[in-house]
Amino acid sequence: MKVAIIFGSKSDTEKMKGAASVLKEFNIEYKAYILSAHRVPEKLMETIEKVEEGGCECIIAGAGLAAHLPGVIASHTVLPVIGVPINAAVNGMDSLLSIVQMPKSIPVATVGINNSYNAGMLAVQILSLKYPEIKNKLKEYRKNMKEKFIKENEEGVEF
Amino acid sequence: MKVAIIFGSKSDTEKMKGAASVLKEFNIEYKAYILSAHRVPEKLMETIEKVEEGGCECIIAGAGLAAHLPGVIASHTVLPVIGVPINAAVNGMDSLLSIVQMPKSIPVATVGINNSYNAGMLAVQILSLKYPEIKNKLKEYRKNMKEKFIKENEEGVEF
Amino acid sequence: MKVAIIFGSKSDTEKMKGAASVLKEFNIEYKAYILSAHRVPEKLMETIEKVEEGGCECIIAGAGLAAHLPGVIASHTVLPVIGVPINAAVNGMDSLLSIVQMPKSIPVATVGINNSYNAGMLAVQILSLKYPEIKNKLKEYRKNMKEKFIKENEEGVEF
Amino acid sequence: MKVAIIFGSKSDTEKMKGAASVLKEFNIEYKAYILSAHRVPEKLMETIEKVEEGGCECIIAGAGLAAHLPGVIASHTVLPVIGVPINAAVNGMDSLLSIVQMPKSIPVATVGINNSYNAGMLAVQILSLKYPEIKNKLKEYRKNMKEKFIKENEEGVEF
Amino acid sequence: MKVAIIFGSKSDTEKMKGAASVLKEFNIEYKAYILSAHRVPEKLMETIEKVEEGGCECIIAGAGLAAHLPGVIASHTVLPVIGVPINAAVNGMDSLLSIVQMPKSIPVATVGINNSYNAGMLAVQILSLKYPEIKNKLKEYRKNMKEKFIKENEEGVEF
Amino acid sequence: MKVAIIFGSKSDTEKMKGAASVLKEFNIEYKAYILSAHRVPEKLMETIEKVEEGGCECIIAGAGLAAHLPGVIASHTVLPVIGVPINAAVNGMDSLLSIVQMPKSIPVATVGINNSYNAGMLAVQILSLKYPEIKNKLKEYRKNMKEKFIKENEEGVEF
Amino acid sequence: MKVAIIFGSKSDTEKMKGAASVLKEFNIEYKAYILSAHRVPEKLMETIEKVEEGGCECIIAGAGLAAHLPGVIASHTVLPVIGVPINAAVNGMDSLLSIVQMPKSIPVATVGINNSYNAGMLAVQILSLKYPEIKNKLKEYRKNMKEKFIKENEEGVEF
Amino acid sequence: MKVAIIFGSKSDTEKMKGAASVLKEFNIEYKAYILSAHRVPEKLMETIEKVEEGGCECIIAGAGLAAHLPGVIASHTVLPVIGVPINAAVNGMDSLLSIVQMPKSIPVATVGINNSYNAGMLAVQILSLKYPEIKNKLKEYRKNMKEKFIKENEEGVEF
Repeated sequence: MKVAIIFGSKSDTEKMKGAASVLKEFNIEYKAYILSAHRVPEKLMETIEKVEEGGCECIIAGAGLAAHLPGVIASHTVLPVIGVPINAAVNGMDSLLSIVQMPKSIPVATVGINNSYNAGMLAVQILSLKYPEIKNKLKEYRKNMKEKFIKENEEGVEF
Repeated sequence: MKVAIIFGSKSDTEKMKGAASVLKEFNIEYKAYILSAHRVPEKLMETIEKVEEGGCECIIAGAGLAAHLPGVIASHTVLPVIGVPINAAVNGMDSLLSIVQMPKSIPVATVGINNSYNAGMLAVQILSLKYPEIKNKLKEYRKNMKEKFIKENEEGVEF
Repeated sequence: MKVAIIFGSKSDTEKMKGAASVLKEFNIEYKAYILSAHRVPEKLMETIEKVEEGGCECIIAGAGLAAHLPGVIASHTVLPVIGVPINAAVNGMDSLLSIVQMPKSIPVATVGINNSYNAGMLAVQILSLKYPEIKNKLKEYRKNMKEKFIKENEEGVEF
Repeated sequence: MKVAIIFGSKSDTEKMKGAASVLKEFNIEYKAYILSAHRVPEKLMETIEKVEEGGCECIIAGAGLAAHLPGVIASHTVLPVIGVPINAAVNGMDSLLSIVQMPKSIPVATVGINNSYNAGMLAVQILSLKYPEIKNKLKEYRKNMKEKFIKENEEGVEF
Repeated sequence: MKVAIIFGSKSDTEKMKGAASVLKEFNIEYKAYILSAHRVPEKLMETIEKVEEGGCECIIAGAGLAAHLPGVIASHTVLPVIGVPINAAVNGMDSLLSIVQMPKSIPVATVGINNSYNAGMLAVQILSLKYPEIKNKLKEYRKNMKEKFIKENEEGVEF
Repeated sequence: MKVAIIFGSKSDTEKMKGAASVLKEFNIEYKAYILSAHRVPEKLMETIEKVEEGGCECIIAGAGLAAHLPGVIASHTVLPVIGVPINAAVNGMDSLLSIVQMPKSIPVATVGINNSYNAGMLAVQILSLKYPEIKNKLKEYRKNMKEKFIKENEEGVEF
Repeated sequence: MKVAIIFGSKSDTEKMKGAASVLKEFNIEYKAYILSAHRVPEKLMETIEKVEEGGCECIIAGAGLAAHLPGVIASHTVLPVIGVPINAAVNGMDSLLSIVQMPKSIPVATVGINNSYNAGMLAVQILSLKYPEIKNKLKEYRKNMKEKFIKENEEGVEF
Repeated sequence: MKVAIIFGSKSDTEKMKGAASVLKEFNIEYKAYILSAHRVPEKLMETIEKVEEGGCECIIAGAGLAAHLPGVIASHTVLPVIGVPINAAVNGMDSLLSIVQMPKSIPVATVGINNSYNAGMLAVQILSLKYPEIKNKLKEYRKNMKEKFIKENEEGVEF
């Protein structure tokens, strides 16, 4: 397993699917866990340790409200932690600020509100530094994305 | 010791003094710790355990930015945790939302931005339920506060 | 009765149910009142006095918009007052700020927007300091919560 | 006395001066009180009653933070209450929302943040409906204001 | 006619009804106009003049977005102008700020977002200074409001 | 005169200088007026008419707080109006929203908070469509801007 | 073609229609492109060049979230660029700020959130400086708008 | 060179120093460039290409206001891009939202407002996946950070 996806509640599964879909597309092994920094802190720490031992190289963590999960994970590992703010109140601004405004020394790589797809993509970009085959796929992906975008939109739009 | 005051950085000492000043005024034993949920998580958990064993009945926690400290403490104890949002950016809104928007089951009793005095006062009010002498002092305090306020302001103001 | 739950309008009943549900779960006697700081201020003050005489030890107050109810109650009692910001406009930010930003000396223990469940839980935590049987139940509750969380989520999630 | 100016702390005197200066300019009798909705609620209610009996026709109330003062006054009188949000935190947004977002039936006539001058002017406009001499002065004031503005700025500006 | 109700678009009729309903309840003559500060500025000015000549004593103005209507009216009259921020975007914060933050000398008496009922009530309170019969009705209204509130809610609520 | 610069108070002169400086640099005739939509509405309308007759082709309007000036001007002319939000409270958010959120049909071309330089530049770009010599200068300006930027920063920076 | 309308995704077509409808109404030739600053930057630059060569005089660009499209276009052309913030999250505040807060020298003429109609109107106003027939139509349009508004609303409204 | 630090203006040098200081501490080669997405877009693209060819594995980009720099860089490379929102207006909220709210497929790893130190640290964490010696230093760094924190704060604080 190269990436662990952790989030705090089954009800966020739909919003976190984007991360998994990118990793699948790039054939990167991942495993998803539902774990809460507040409800099961001991289990969370145990799991962080376990995934590190299992060769995990990047952790994606999604949370809403006072979203401590990504920051708490980051305080227990030196792996890069990618945070996904989930909108559960005040348009997700509580979650965004709770994730991105980390204190000096313990960063969380934050992506957009509800944008777990970009969390997956960022994980791919990070892993691509080490794994040339991922880098190649990534370049291919970008090329295809561009071509597909251009093809789909080349006729412009008729108002 | 009845109250533990925990905050994340020496630089917040001035802003947290208010809490201590109330407790002193009410002769309530307290102890202050500088501890970070992100930098020294193990030490924080250890300290929570220690203060609980030492008879602590209420924890005041102050933090700025992505202020996880109060919520992380709350996840490791069943003692009431009082959170003080400290303004370090965006007018303290990041800290307020990171502290108050806790998920179901693990509340933090949040007071106003930079208002550690009120955190101390809330601790006094909570302890007063159990300790009649604190309750008496509290009523006295309120009475004095009112009298003092009225005295100081009875002449109104001349513009 | 140990806890009074006060809120400003029948239409908020659903949002305040969480507080009652926790208290029921812990067998803590409570009584709920619909009272407005602005519409029936005299009745409110009368009720505060009455519940205090009736042995009430903690007041939960929920309000939306310019949510003065919790703060006004706090100014008439030395009991701990727990404030629940109810979202009725601007995502509940008006209510949150109207409740949490209390001036020096008269705190309101604020919980998350619409999160009356946490208000109930905070009341439980406060009462547990004085009542060992509540403390025991609270520890049991946390233990069960953790076990239930782990059980429900141990298979992870399949994307 | 026709207007009562009430605010919560001596430290706000400077910010509330604008209200008094307008009233002076229009020779409208006023009296200023420092009174807090939270610290001395009984004294506040007493004073509201007293000023009403003394013939007061309009109340200007200034407050910061969780600014309950104008709303609490409005709940104890049918006189028009003018609220001045004072900036003490988060740019005065807490105060503005705490004053303006009053529930149905108990309005507060809110003016701009720190803009007590406009509170005074609004009181003048309200009183001018009943007192023709104030109405005349008001028209004169507006005329002078325009002339003065034009005179001062007629040369335009040289960059 | 004592009160003019002005707003910018037929689509806001529903949101402005509250103002009319209060005035009706108090038997205060009003007339409603749909007028835009931006689309028909000349017609607006003409109408302001006309209503003033017709004996209008108070103007209620509702607007959304960059809500200039109340302020523009206030710049053309010395009558008290009551502004109703209408939520058409960003939760009505654009409208609230566009109405309440008027410059020195030209106040708008602002009420809560979408709260035209309170605009009507404020008009009643303002007129009550001059018209004793309105004052009497207003006191009656408050008394009834309190009694009705208490009656409706005296059984509390059963969760 | 091709451009009129209008703003509401002498105290904003410094913040509006940027607009003038660009126009000077491009040798575009402009004239600056201090005029308030609220204090001298008649004078404002008169001036708009006058500048239109004088050949003005673009109006830059700067205002703070409930910044109605640009929108009010736009409602009295079909010339393009460029709005500069000036920060006088709440970080300029009141001004930005009061200027940009114009209703359908009467746009204001809004630039950044306090960014009158960009208002001047936008006026230049607009005028360049009609005046080839301005277009040429504009291309030259951009080229120089790039060269200057690159020259100034080509050594990078040493930390 | 005089105006290019560019936006980032087919899903925004509905929100961008307003711009096209105005241009149609004024018989101004336009062409619409779906292009993304982030997904197909090279294609975007190519298209900017192409439309400039094709005689385009004004570009309307709509985007949501971190809305870079209008600013990126502005950095590659000296044509006036009109930005339409599209609400895709946080009420469109992310998009508004990403578009309007451009640095010195590279302005984007920003209109209201989702208000592409005003973007079209602004383009018309800009083009009217150079094309007298557009200017005439614009004056006609305003006149008609006023007459239509007055006609539609002359009976006022019955509550 | 393993890391490129790019930011838009010499005046931000002080705020970006934190990134460089971390990289120095970990002996990671970096190079800093002052480049603007809006002022010198061609030079920016050229530089991205150059640093990629030079072996750069991670780009740190800092920008204020409508902070397009990190996102524009991300659209031209598949290297991980770390964005630092710099506070130049509205408390840095414009910059934060302009950086973090990237559309699907092109993420920017965003850190806290003005927190370039964390950008440096995140780069270290990302590189540590590939370079075992950095991983070792990182673990050492964390261990030292903890020990230093505990040592400095072990006496608690005396109020």
